[in-house]
Amino acid sequence: MSKENLDLVGIGNAIVDVLTKTGDDFLRANKINKGTMTLIEADQAEALYAKMGPGTEVSGGSAANTVAAFASMSGKAGYIGKVANDQLGSVFRHDIRAIGVAFETPALTDGPPTARCLILITPDAQRTMCTFLGACVWIAPSDLDEEMIKNSKVTYLEGYLFDRPRAKLTFRKASEIARGAGKKVALTLSDPFCVDRHRDEFLDLIKNGTDILFANEAELLSLYKADEFDDAVKQARETCPLVIVTRSAKGSLILNGNDTIEVAAESVKAVVDTTGAGDMYAAGFLYGYTKGKSLAECGRAASVVAAEVIQHVGARPQLDLAKLLREKKAV
Amino acid sequence: MSKENLDLVGIGNAIVDVLTKTGDDFLRANKINKGTMTLIEADQAEALYAKMGPGTEVSGGSAANTVAAFASMSGKAGYIGKVANDQLGSVFRHDIRAIGVAFETPALTDGPPTARCLILITPDAQRTMCTFLGACVWIAPSDLDEEMIKNSKVTYLEGYLFDRPRAKLTFRKASEIARGAGKKVALTLSDPFCVDRHRDEFLDLIKNGTDILFANEAELLSLYKADEFDDAVKQARETCPLVIVTRSAKGSLILNGNDTIEVAAESVKAVVDTTGAGDMYAAGFLYGYTKGKSLAECGRAASVVAAEVIQHVGARPQLDLAKLLREKKAV
Repeated sequence: MSKENLDLVGIGNAIVDVLTKTGDDFLRANKINKGTMTLIEADQAEALYAKMGPGTEVSGGSAANTVAAFASMSGKAGYIGKVANDQLGSVFRHDIRAIGVAFETPALTDGPPTARCLILITPDAQRTMCTFLGACVWIAPSDLDEEMIKNSKVTYLEGYLFDRPRAKLTFRKASEIARGAGKKVALTLSDPFCVDRHRDEFLDLIKNGTDILFANEAELLSLYKADEFDDAVKQARETCPLVIVTRSAKGSLILNGNDTIEVAAESVKAVVDTTGAGDMYAAGFLYGYTKGKSLAECGRAASVVAAEVIQHVGARPQLDLAKLLREKKAV
Repeated sequence: MSKENLDLVGIGNAIVDVLTKTGDDFLRANKINKGTMTLIEADQAEALYAKMGPGTEVSGGSAANTVAAFASMSGKAGYIGKVANDQLGSVFRHDIRAIGVAFETPALTDGPPTARCLILITPDAQRTMCTFLGACVWIAPSDLDEEMIKNSKVTYLEGYLFDRPRAKLTFRKASEIARGAGKKVALTLSDPFCVDRHRDEFLDLIKNGTDILFANEAELLSLYKADEFDDAVKQARETCPLVIVTRSAKGSLILNGNDTIEVAAESVKAVVDTTGAGDMYAAGFLYGYTKGKSLAECGRAASVVAAEVIQHVGARPQLDLAKLLREKKAV
């Protein structure tokens, strides 16, 4: 896992997912908004966990899932994020390295435990997330590996990280380092409510420090406080040179200046768990992008790998994605 | 999770499984015997883990899997086993309680971490296990909840626990408490090599403290140092009043004194991972047994739940087993 000449470095919340299947009644009884991500404190996490059914622990984190998938496609990837010096931190470190990602951010030794995301999967395959950020948000500008960022074609930033001031500073510095070295910065909005909490700063970063923006419909509407999708799209074109809008089963739109490329969603037999679909989409797209493929080809690769992850429980790929792309003749 | 009037209490190694898919070449390169369970020390566990691919953490432990499945069938179950006071210990405790099992054994506060079993799943769906026992083997006779055992119809002992002297003592005491209260003791042999290491003590416990014995063919051959299956069966009849021999796709044999009941295996679409098949079989059998069903019905319930677990990765049920038994009209 050399960290020289990387194609992609991801910066985000280093999280271990705790996945469990549940009914809609559990969400209602615990007043949890279906389909969203809610931040919870340590005591809330403990109380909710105590009520949850048996779980499965799998490494997660949005940008971490993306770089893991990128590495599975045989792309050269690195990761920057903060775990604690505990068992779940070791699990996270092992898993991301085991898939071939360079990851050297030192663990937090004196603070809260490694972040956990309690993921409740309902029978309709929707995932609802409750995140205890723990050690994640202790990431500081000093954790940034400047060489890694300077040597990477794209630095990919996870919007979720915007939820804490120190993390936000880290984010901005990463963007400056990457662009200072003439490299590209990609940003994913992550969550409409996170966007709502930090709209102005998001808009500033997009206008002044972002080359590629990933968002779903709800995030785009939230960002521009728009009521109509077409209005949000219009504003997006004016804010960022390349915007990719994911639309679940409707596929995705690539907004390249005034051009629009429509990408169909891959058909799947059965959707089991949508956790990680957006993360995988970004991985596939950026894989094509860093290989110099056409935007349509990037979109097709994105759809193929997103389709893989929604057919099983968990946000990281369970197939060899390089092989999958070859079989599907994508990229 | 009341611990009064239980149907089943399991005593075993409290382990968190780390599951990963791998090729046969990985087993060869690391000199690991396919299909078996190998005990490894902390440093070996660390070295092997570092070489393994990304994993999934799920609560495991043979007897713990059995009581978890038993509870999923709506049986009243308890568990006794030792985890450490760490994150994986909390995961184990949460998962077994969340499925409805009474579990109150205090965590080890000053010793090795919670046990881990590195499970390597090859493309043929075989599982090969490397176990770091950690806190497990610190279980002591004082950890036994006498009321729980006295109040349970059956106490189920996991042969794996025989691998350490203190654990062995705990085992014997549990058998004495159960039988002293007029209750039944069931024993599973767990592993042919473990049986080989402790043959005389196993035979002594079976003859003098066991009512129901579970074994697969290899374990039975090992126990009696027999070359022929028929010879092992003959000796088994002489040693224990009720012996159940599991034979994978060939189904199972119930040896009830001089009678033999043949039980067919349930047919399955595709075998994905055989981890936990024996544990589930015992759960189904004992569920029927504690409900006073005929031995043939016990065997049928056993086959139905064993079939569920081999169709997905992981050793614990992913379906509501009570519902499955109703659908299959078993028990």
